[in-house]
Amino acid sequence: MQKSDILLRDLDDDGILRLTLNDVGRRNALSEAMLAELGEAFVSAGANKAVRVVILAANGPAFCAGHDLKEMTAGREGPDGGKAYFTKVMTLCCGVMQAVVNCPKPVIAEVTGVATAAGCQLVASCDLAIAADTAQFSTPGVHIGLFCSTPMVALSRNVNNKHAMEMLLTGDMTSAERAAEIGLVNHTVAPEALQAATLEMARKIASKSSMTLATGKRAFYAQREMPLAEAYDYAAQVMVENMLARDAEEGIGAFIEKRAPQWQDM
Amino acid sequence: MQKSDILLRDLDDDGILRLTLNDVGRRNALSEAMLAELGEAFVSAGANKAVRVVILAANGPAFCAGHDLKEMTAGREGPDGGKAYFTKVMTLCCGVMQAVVNCPKPVIAEVTGVATAAGCQLVASCDLAIAADTAQFSTPGVHIGLFCSTPMVALSRNVNNKHAMEMLLTGDMTSAERAAEIGLVNHTVAPEALQAATLEMARKIASKSSMTLATGKRAFYAQREMPLAEAYDYAAQVMVENMLARDAEEGIGAFIEKRAPQWQDM
Amino acid sequence: MQKSDILLRDLDDDGILRLTLNDVGRRNALSEAMLAELGEAFVSAGANKAVRVVILAANGPAFCAGHDLKEMTAGREGPDGGKAYFTKVMTLCCGVMQAVVNCPKPVIAEVTGVATAAGCQLVASCDLAIAADTAQFSTPGVHIGLFCSTPMVALSRNVNNKHAMEMLLTGDMTSAERAAEIGLVNHTVAPEALQAATLEMARKIASKSSMTLATGKRAFYAQREMPLAEAYDYAAQVMVENMLARDAEEGIGAFIEKRAPQWQDM
Repeated sequence: MQKSDILLRDLDDDGILRLTLNDVGRRNALSEAMLAELGEAFVSAGANKAVRVVILAANGPAFCAGHDLKEMTAGREGPDGGKAYFTKVMTLCCGVMQAVVNCPKPVIAEVTGVATAAGCQLVASCDLAIAADTAQFSTPGVHIGLFCSTPMVALSRNVNNKHAMEMLLTGDMTSAERAAEIGLVNHTVAPEALQAATLEMARKIASKSSMTLATGKRAFYAQREMPLAEAYDYAAQVMVENMLARDAEEGIGAFIEKRAPQWQDM
Repeated sequence: MQKSDILLRDLDDDGILRLTLNDVGRRNALSEAMLAELGEAFVSAGANKAVRVVILAANGPAFCAGHDLKEMTAGREGPDGGKAYFTKVMTLCCGVMQAVVNCPKPVIAEVTGVATAAGCQLVASCDLAIAADTAQFSTPGVHIGLFCSTPMVALSRNVNNKHAMEMLLTGDMTSAERAAEIGLVNHTVAPEALQAATLEMARKIASKSSMTLATGKRAFYAQREMPLAEAYDYAAQVMVENMLARDAEEGIGAFIEKRAPQWQDM
Repeated sequence: MQKSDILLRDLDDDGILRLTLNDVGRRNALSEAMLAELGEAFVSAGANKAVRVVILAANGPAFCAGHDLKEMTAGREGPDGGKAYFTKVMTLCCGVMQAVVNCPKPVIAEVTGVATAAGCQLVASCDLAIAADTAQFSTPGVHIGLFCSTPMVALSRNVNNKHAMEMLLTGDMTSAERAAEIGLVNHTVAPEALQAATLEMARKIASKSSMTLATGKRAFYAQREMPLAEAYDYAAQVMVENMLARDAEEGIGAFIEKRAPQWQDM
């Protein structure tokens, strides 16, 4: 499964795929190479029946530092001052973030260290996030004249407006504790307990029917963008189709008979 | 006013209608019969001028256990494997939830015990909710292969994305305290203080002009789904019409003259 | 810069424009005169290159009491019972609130005292807000038969539904501490520390590139109303244009070279 050493991929027997950002020297920056790896990893995790849940982790003190600014600056050399290059990189990056959202497997961010700019966006794009209580978050683009406009798409879909605006306009670091208060992460734990906490959550989710998780995750983000009446019409259809699927029949039967369910794909 | 003993209806002299889920043996499950009762109760409360506020309460240890799974399973017997039946039940249930939202009277959930799946959705659909600090909430469909896709429509319009996703993907119980932190309920109180707390809030609201409450509740959910400029155009019209209504003239006059207002319908 | 003594305007050398509501005898009500002043002040702040950040403050015990009810009542004298007058005032008021949102300079509310009705809306409309821990907030229109329908447009874009509904349906006062919990304000501080806290935040933001702040603020509110895929397409374009601007080139260059950036307009 391993394709590059900047993104480690480990799939365990419970169907938990651990993706580890491993470009420590560049603080796990989202270089073109890293974006390509990540995008491919989420698409292939989506298609791989053996993968039930994805954990996105990182080696080194920084979870992810966002775009690779030296690479971006080198892109200015083109005859158009970099326009084509920046467009390519931004399109690639927005595609990766949406690949996380569109991946049919639940994705949990395991945030060890500092997550900044597009790194913060990556955490916000995951379905769930647990952070070390020493982790920190920021959208610091204002410090360098480049507002975190793409990160804010994900950020503002996680936290309330004034909280998002404070991070975006000041560029200040947000503590893990504060990130949990405002809804950017689900929980914080001591750094030494982080991997076990993420794994426990992943195992719990991996024990569910993958068909059911995929159905629900897709429906969640789809209905969130609809007016109420339309959302109910859509979700009712999703429920009916889910009821007719074999795993719901098995799951409900097992519940009534007080036994453990046997999912189709396990 | 009483139509069935699975849903008790008590209207007091202050215009507070107390609806009590009373199918204790089935943990107040949303059976077809219960859904029909609830839907009718909210529509008729909306049309009844004597009703100023609705409290939705429950007898027994469970507030509401969601759909009646035995009834749903029996529905599989049809020649289509249950498709027509499930469609009917889901349409009925989504209709009840929207009847709560569309009811012109404010609705307060009084959550004594466990509110799960569509029972949690019912709480989320109410305008306000007060819970016993021993109450618990969950969207546990993933345990039985049936993602809580319709409950999440209401849930995700109350709490932030990562909080909703944690409940939906893990199926874990959420404590009343946590439910208050994330915005699923307004407040928690000791179980023995719950009924008094809900009644106090209901009385406060019942003392307002029903015309004004109906105007505002409808406008709230309508504008919430509009872009900002459209929402302001709409709300400005609502304000002008509200200003021209007799209760606003009376209310503002009473305020300026430092006397109690006399609402038209009291 | 001073145009009227009901709204004081002070621009300091750091580019921080301090607008102070100064109609203390009327509790800084949003009279027609005040609305006209405020609207003009935000539009002219937007156009003035010397202004980098706006602080909206108030003199006297009340931050802002909302509409001027005596003036509104006098408006009933017209042959149409006030309809044309109310329409004019509401249009003016909604225009002022949107002028805050559309102002390309970040706006920070400094909330000393009570902010009610359209006064609460004004706080909600600002990008950021810091409150004295003695400040209070309410949308008390229900007390006078006039639901706070326009204030709720801003309120419901700051706080979650049940929190907004509690304020709107009860009309009760919300403490500064609670306002911070639900996201209506960013932080609370002791009254004697308020002005320094707001100024510190304003100075931090004023040290950034105005072009970058304007780009980001506009994009924030625009993308917030789009579905995810559209928001990403839009934000990616914003990022590319931002990258091509001189201040981003300077800012990124300064970051790589570990020196302070020199923004174009400073």
